[in-house]
Amino acid sequence: MEKKAVILLSGGIDSTTILAIAKNQGYETYALSFRYGQKHKIEIEKAKKIARNFGVKKHLILSIQLNKIGGSALTDNIPIPKGRNLMEIGSGIPVSYVPARNTIFLSYALAWAEVIGTGDIFIGVNAVDFSGYPDCRPEYIMAFEKMANLATKVAVEGKIRFRIHTPLIHLTKAEIIKKGLELGVDYSLTHSCYEPLSDGRPCGQCDSCKLRLKGFKEAGYVDPLVYPDNR
Amino acid sequence: MEKKAVILLSGGIDSTTILAIAKNQGYETYALSFRYGQKHKIEIEKAKKIARNFGVKKHLILSIQLNKIGGSALTDNIPIPKGRNLMEIGSGIPVSYVPARNTIFLSYALAWAEVIGTGDIFIGVNAVDFSGYPDCRPEYIMAFEKMANLATKVAVEGKIRFRIHTPLIHLTKAEIIKKGLELGVDYSLTHSCYEPLSDGRPCGQCDSCKLRLKGFKEAGYVDPLVYPDNR
Repeated sequence: MEKKAVILLSGGIDSTTILAIAKNQGYETYALSFRYGQKHKIEIEKAKKIARNFGVKKHLILSIQLNKIGGSALTDNIPIPKGRNLMEIGSGIPVSYVPARNTIFLSYALAWAEVIGTGDIFIGVNAVDFSGYPDCRPEYIMAFEKMANLATKVAVEGKIRFRIHTPLIHLTKAEIIKKGLELGVDYSLTHSCYEPLSDGRPCGQCDSCKLRLKGFKEAGYVDPLVYPDNR
Repeated sequence: MEKKAVILLSGGIDSTTILAIAKNQGYETYALSFRYGQKHKIEIEKAKKIARNFGVKKHLILSIQLNKIGGSALTDNIPIPKGRNLMEIGSGIPVSYVPARNTIFLSYALAWAEVIGTGDIFIGVNAVDFSGYPDCRPEYIMAFEKMANLATKVAVEGKIRFRIHTPLIHLTKAEIIKKGLELGVDYSLTHSCYEPLSDGRPCGQCDSCKLRLKGFKEAGYVDPLVYPDNR
């Protein structure tokens, strides 16, 4: 029987790359995406195309209501910073931080993994390149994994041991892009911008666009997305 | 400034009792309930009345879609066991177990607590009286708490330390009921049944009804709910 994995898929560079990695490792893939009230909900349409492109076994899209909790520039009435330089992006935890988002996403992934009968969960977190998010660090992932193995019926009964796979955690964005290209990822399908233009193009000015563009530049490739002429 | 606490409120005996305990400890209370596709969604109406009765500062009800994940008799097409005796109820993890439910609930509570600026989260888990759920045990709660303090911006910045309060974890159902009555809880407002009758009365036959009735009996009180004549 093919081994299964749940892949948290946002439609960005990192999650698309881990989907490619999991496929390459021989997993039958179950992609999980969330409508959580994000301003850039266009990413869900991208995630659908990516999931089809990779032939995932199932793509589950859940509507959850993080915007009712708020507290983030991505979900709440807080402006998304534009035009910051890399030093500004690198200092402290940005306002795009969504309270407990990865914990909530991983908790759903845990539930689904238990139901489909696998312990393998992939998440595209990354602790370098200025992400600044506390829930992208190795010590957090290790603590979540430990908790998961105490939380669930299949783990307590000794049938499954949960493992949170983070193949990108120590890579730079440039290294991630190179790895994805080696595996045949089509990055024109992906979306990174926190606040895209009304025509769907990325803004080119938010932290996420800046880090994406820096990654492509350092990797020596041209980002296949079309940006407005403001970079 | 009054200290704040997030209270996970399902509308059952345990969560209503912890709401009373938190109020008694001087907290300004923020109640959090979930429509998660449960068969006994009547509990949400009960939770609303209980929240009003206790004068909570805010009652947030989130619609999440655990029924899309399934895997439980409470959310899926799996019959809820009826008429089991206490020895049967006490053996193993029951089919009413919902994969990762407390982890998902606590993750949302964590997000909300971070946004309102408190580290205090109350959950009515209970490790005795046959609950059998892995995510009700002290070792699980400790692991969640540790993870929470690595996951969040306010914890990592040293502004807030999260604490998961579980004042009922080592009490029997009878002790919980006695404590609640001391604090003036009106248990006629609460709901425990996994599959109530169409008129809203509890079935009297599911594990949850059986444990509730046993609790009242051992506490020396009469359950104020009206049951069909089948006990």
